[in-house]
Amino acid sequence: MTAATGTARWTRGASFREMWRDLAPVGRHSGTGGYRRYAWTEADADCRAWFAGQAHARGLVCETDRNGNQWAWLGTAPPAGTEPGSAVVTGSHLDSVPDGGAFDGPLGIVSAFAALDELHARGARPARPLAVANFADEEGARFGLACAGSRLATGGLTPSAARELRDADGTTLARAMERAGHDPEGIGPDPERLSRIGAFVELHIEQGRTLARTGDAVGVASAIWPHGRWRFDFRGEANHAGTTLLADRRDPMLTYAHTVLAAREQAARAGALATFGKTTVEPNGVNAIASLVRGWLDSRAADEETLAAVVTAIERAAAERGERDGVTVGVTRESFTPVVEFEHALRDRITALLGGARVLPTGAGHDAGILSAEVPAAMLFVRNPTGVSHSPAETADEDDCLAGVTALADVLEGLACP
Amino acid sequence: MTAATGTARWTRGASFREMWRDLAPVGRHSGTGGYRRYAWTEADADCRAWFAGQAHARGLVCETDRNGNQWAWLGTAPPAGTEPGSAVVTGSHLDSVPDGGAFDGPLGIVSAFAALDELHARGARPARPLAVANFADEEGARFGLACAGSRLATGGLTPSAARELRDADGTTLARAMERAGHDPEGIGPDPERLSRIGAFVELHIEQGRTLARTGDAVGVASAIWPHGRWRFDFRGEANHAGTTLLADRRDPMLTYAHTVLAAREQAARAGALATFGKTTVEPNGVNAIASLVRGWLDSRAADEETLAAVVTAIERAAAERGERDGVTVGVTRESFTPVVEFEHALRDRITALLGGARVLPTGAGHDAGILSAEVPAAMLFVRNPTGVSHSPAETADEDDCLAGVTALADVLEGLACP
Repeated sequence: MTAATGTARWTRGASFREMWRDLAPVGRHSGTGGYRRYAWTEADADCRAWFAGQAHARGLVCETDRNGNQWAWLGTAPPAGTEPGSAVVTGSHLDSVPDGGAFDGPLGIVSAFAALDELHARGARPARPLAVANFADEEGARFGLACAGSRLATGGLTPSAARELRDADGTTLARAMERAGHDPEGIGPDPERLSRIGAFVELHIEQGRTLARTGDAVGVASAIWPHGRWRFDFRGEANHAGTTLLADRRDPMLTYAHTVLAAREQAARAGALATFGKTTVEPNGVNAIASLVRGWLDSRAADEETLAAVVTAIERAAAERGERDGVTVGVTRESFTPVVEFEHALRDRITALLGGARVLPTGAGHDAGILSAEVPAAMLFVRNPTGVSHSPAETADEDDCLAGVTALADVLEGLACP
Repeated sequence: MTAATGTARWTRGASFREMWRDLAPVGRHSGTGGYRRYAWTEADADCRAWFAGQAHARGLVCETDRNGNQWAWLGTAPPAGTEPGSAVVTGSHLDSVPDGGAFDGPLGIVSAFAALDELHARGARPARPLAVANFADEEGARFGLACAGSRLATGGLTPSAARELRDADGTTLARAMERAGHDPEGIGPDPERLSRIGAFVELHIEQGRTLARTGDAVGVASAIWPHGRWRFDFRGEANHAGTTLLADRRDPMLTYAHTVLAAREQAARAGALATFGKTTVEPNGVNAIASLVRGWLDSRAADEETLAAVVTAIERAAAERGERDGVTVGVTRESFTPVVEFEHALRDRITALLGGARVLPTGAGHDAGILSAEVPAAMLFVRNPTGVSHSPAETADEDDCLAGVTALADVLEGLACP
């Protein structure tokens, strides 16, 4: 980035870079270079302290809600002098997956504070309450459930179920909250708080290369694809790999292999995604034909009909090959999340504010997707040149990050300043 | 079986059935119905006691050699009055794989004693020393190395390496032998003992369905196929399964799946065997494209050239598909056992003694294969109607077992009685 393109850009760039530098070492593992910022840990507390520090440095009023989400309000925090649906909120999360990258989550929060700096530099005067939010436990890396903070707020996760979530050491979420100084008895739906929000805009690094292909630094989300997980159980017959004639085998590894390739083919044909990333084998011996291969299918598509068609085609391919191999195939749907279509009016307004930005869908879940059930929500994506996500190699160019800050400032100004 | 076909058959059948019934409960797991007769355990000691009991009941001289193999000699045990290469020995093993079947091993020993009974009933008078042998730890289920007893005798396994073999609990073979009352300091090559043997004939249940197809109750082994294990490392790039476009992926699961199917195809084309039965995946998460898939190939063929060609073709298929998937493929040969060609003169003599029996190869290792390096060795196979092996479902018809006893008696009579 050059510092020669005007005061506003310099201010924005300096503020962004300073925050990025401050946050960079928090929860970073020196061995892997990845982040281990898990909910309600010491690294998480450091992230929260950093958030509060940024709020205070800007004279924002910082509060933590009953579910552990942080809010930094410009001027007075609602409900003082606010009407339902009046507030404009931006933000994301600071926690990470195991050995995650620096951008997934933090980019949205650093950009939010930098956008407020930009509005200040522009001399913009917000007429609506404006806040930066940091949602708790978005990745679900520790307790296994993504978006716990926003799900609790919308009522999509019940307090009793949440309190009983356990980490790998057996510690409950309730106990972890308690140890971190947060009262787990207070968690639960927060309709009053959500009712104040007229628009929630989450900026996020793209987890893919659509913008890299189209040549856009910033895009606007249309929807979060419907997605689900299906467990395929391929059952054959264990036998001696060194003596059993090919014709006498009932080898489920063959059926599994065929199904993996069929999934890719069906996804490509439908413009969808289908992945086998987890597999277990019994007895898993080098000289034993497998008796059971389990494969988990993760599949996503632009709409539920396409997704259903893709999964049905994969199931059919598995069953047909299974018949040839003497292998039975059982399929269990383990989870399913319907499509999230972001509010069209807000999306169109944002696209217009950005002078006609690229609109694109995403396959990943986000707090904005959870909140969209209760609040008009939207997302901005910043170009990811490699598309790599959930990895220390995740990256974005600084120029694109600053373009994201400008876009977010434009959106906030358009939504909050008359 | 009918008891109406003459005295010899009745004697043979009764003796076989009685031994089979006595041995059946030893080391059998009531839950799985499979056998857990591991070397130097209590179940193994019970098997050894049963062997000694059968020897004594027949007036045979029973001894345990320095490596823990048992020998039951008809008349006087060598070296008393024997010339090098004079003895004729038959036998197999009594230990099992985890939850193995009743036939793999024990059929050879029960048939050996029953064949001696048959010779006795026939009034045959052996002119050469004749013995039944029970080889220690053929399956290697406890210490991970197959045919330990015969490998020690031939020098294929050094005493120091053997003593340090450990079971899953960390117990060394030396300690296990000691606890079972056998001196581990005495183990090692036994050339003098082996030099006395002019022919070793092992009867074994077929581990496949060749005889079931050809309609023969008994066959003669031509060779043990050369075989090996190759580890394939498929390395791609971990990424988010929900957001990464198909075109941007480097998914090693695809390359693995293609290789599994290519292995089957190449094996079928060459009349060989190729199996992926063991697989590990990293990070093995449902919503993560794998970064690393490891697959172990077990491959066997009638000759080493064919085996090499099959494995090379599989490696080439993997590399080609890997290039398409952006996945690197590394192949490591973890073990290789050259072909064992059983001595032609002995094989032809046996085939002639049986009136032209079916000759067939096998893919599995046996003590006869190990001993063949030092001693003229041969094998008889008994028909396995389902081909199932190393499983409680392993079975053979009683009529076929008795045909095996008759065949073994014919062979011993032909080799040992003038």
